[in-house]
Amino acid sequence: MTDQNAPIGVFDSGVGGLTVVKEIMHQIPNERIVYFGDTARVPYGSKSKETITRYSRQIVRFLQTRKVKAIVAACNTASAYALDEIEKEVDLPMIGVVKPGVKAALSATRNGRIGVIGTEGTVRSGIYSQYIKEMEPGADITGKACPLFVPLVEEGLWQDPVTDEIAKRYLSELIGENIDTLVLGCTHYPLIRETLGRIMGQGVVLVNPAYETARELLELLEEKALLRCEESRLGDNKYEFFVSDSSEKFMRFANSIIKYGILSAKTINIEEY
Amino acid sequence: MTDQNAPIGVFDSGVGGLTVVKEIMHQIPNERIVYFGDTARVPYGSKSKETITRYSRQIVRFLQTRKVKAIVAACNTASAYALDEIEKEVDLPMIGVVKPGVKAALSATRNGRIGVIGTEGTVRSGIYSQYIKEMEPGADITGKACPLFVPLVEEGLWQDPVTDEIAKRYLSELIGENIDTLVLGCTHYPLIRETLGRIMGQGVVLVNPAYETARELLELLEEKALLRCEESRLGDNKYEFFVSDSSEKFMRFANSIIKYGILSAKTINIEEY
Repeated sequence: MTDQNAPIGVFDSGVGGLTVVKEIMHQIPNERIVYFGDTARVPYGSKSKETITRYSRQIVRFLQTRKVKAIVAACNTASAYALDEIEKEVDLPMIGVVKPGVKAALSATRNGRIGVIGTEGTVRSGIYSQYIKEMEPGADITGKACPLFVPLVEEGLWQDPVTDEIAKRYLSELIGENIDTLVLGCTHYPLIRETLGRIMGQGVVLVNPAYETARELLELLEEKALLRCEESRLGDNKYEFFVSDSSEKFMRFANSIIKYGILSAKTINIEEY
Repeated sequence: MTDQNAPIGVFDSGVGGLTVVKEIMHQIPNERIVYFGDTARVPYGSKSKETITRYSRQIVRFLQTRKVKAIVAACNTASAYALDEIEKEVDLPMIGVVKPGVKAALSATRNGRIGVIGTEGTVRSGIYSQYIKEMEPGADITGKACPLFVPLVEEGLWQDPVTDEIAKRYLSELIGENIDTLVLGCTHYPLIRETLGRIMGQGVVLVNPAYETARELLELLEEKALLRCEESRLGDNKYEFFVSDSSEKFMRFANSIIKYGILSAKTINIEEY
């Protein structure tokens, strides 16, 4: 029987998934979280389905050693490529960021014309289109891969003329499609939300799947009677962070996303799992 | 006893090392080459010494299974972080790209003021400074990490106003240092050589370690009596390419670097070595 006081496992290719962790901390503040960022093999977005599935499987095995009660794939590429396969193999509730993003997009759109931006992997997988079409066959989806956004965000150019220029190029196609809703299909993108919003214009709603993911996680835990019931105490190690490469850069970036103040992250060799 | 007709092993984090392969093909055309690109874990430049050493060790083990007679670390980050340690463990001649780059820089400079651009790892390692100082204690070295160059090159923006703008920012510091020689300390950078040369101005010599690396490899093979003596025949599989992630993107990029026409690359699971 699963321990309802066990932590939630959250993973990502690196730091981007912390935008999801931040939402979970905000919406379900009593929960414990074990985060894993695959900083030794980041990025996922340009790699193949086979490789991302193998990596995700190793990470899920690692999270199981931490006795998590549920797993969130807080990475669009992993959600797109690996989730369907891995959730069949694992006896734990799992959710990704794609389905919550789809629901949020469908409730936001008025004209049924939705844009999705993400990594090459996420866009090539066509998973957003597939789920949107399943729920709303009349919807019209345009996907656009934006491979430079992650390096630009990681270089700290969140507000910069170069990011503006690159964003204008990537988004021009979507503007031509007359979309009214844009899914930020990569966990790094909320960090350049202001730039994206300015370029798309006021008529376009930007959907950040992180918010909806945390909400679905809450529902899932309620439904399965897995909400943590004990209270947090000082020093009970509520949030734990693990990475596969040395944690210095992770820490710097992590603390710019989460104001909580991450004091340490442990490095593990993920290839051993 | 080593077989002089065995292939040379060349490795890199991904596709960049093909700029070195191209030089070897040109300068030592009779040699066979086995290339490995670690496309499942690319990039190396932002990761730690410990991780890069572990990865390089796995790759060397893989190349040994291919019975190579010598190994070229055609990646500056791997040369900077891992080469010293691994060459002690392996009974094969190994060379990297850093020492050849240093020699070329020292023979090019007139005022002893040398700039080195590379990944965060290469620049942080300080290895170029260390080798240059050992050979020429009076030299003055300025290193500058340029983390966006690799993604820009891989996005195909070899000649683009955005690459210009980013290059101007990175290089402004070096221009202020009055250097007369700039080492392209990452195998991707020769592909934006024209942009870099234009920004640095005619008074600055750009050093591409690939050329000097192929020359040193030739000397090494001569010295150890390891030059291939048999002649190439049609269909003798002279050049073999291996990658750790699916080869589609690799092939596209590879064929834009090497006009030889790479017809196939095999995918292997490098974590098993």
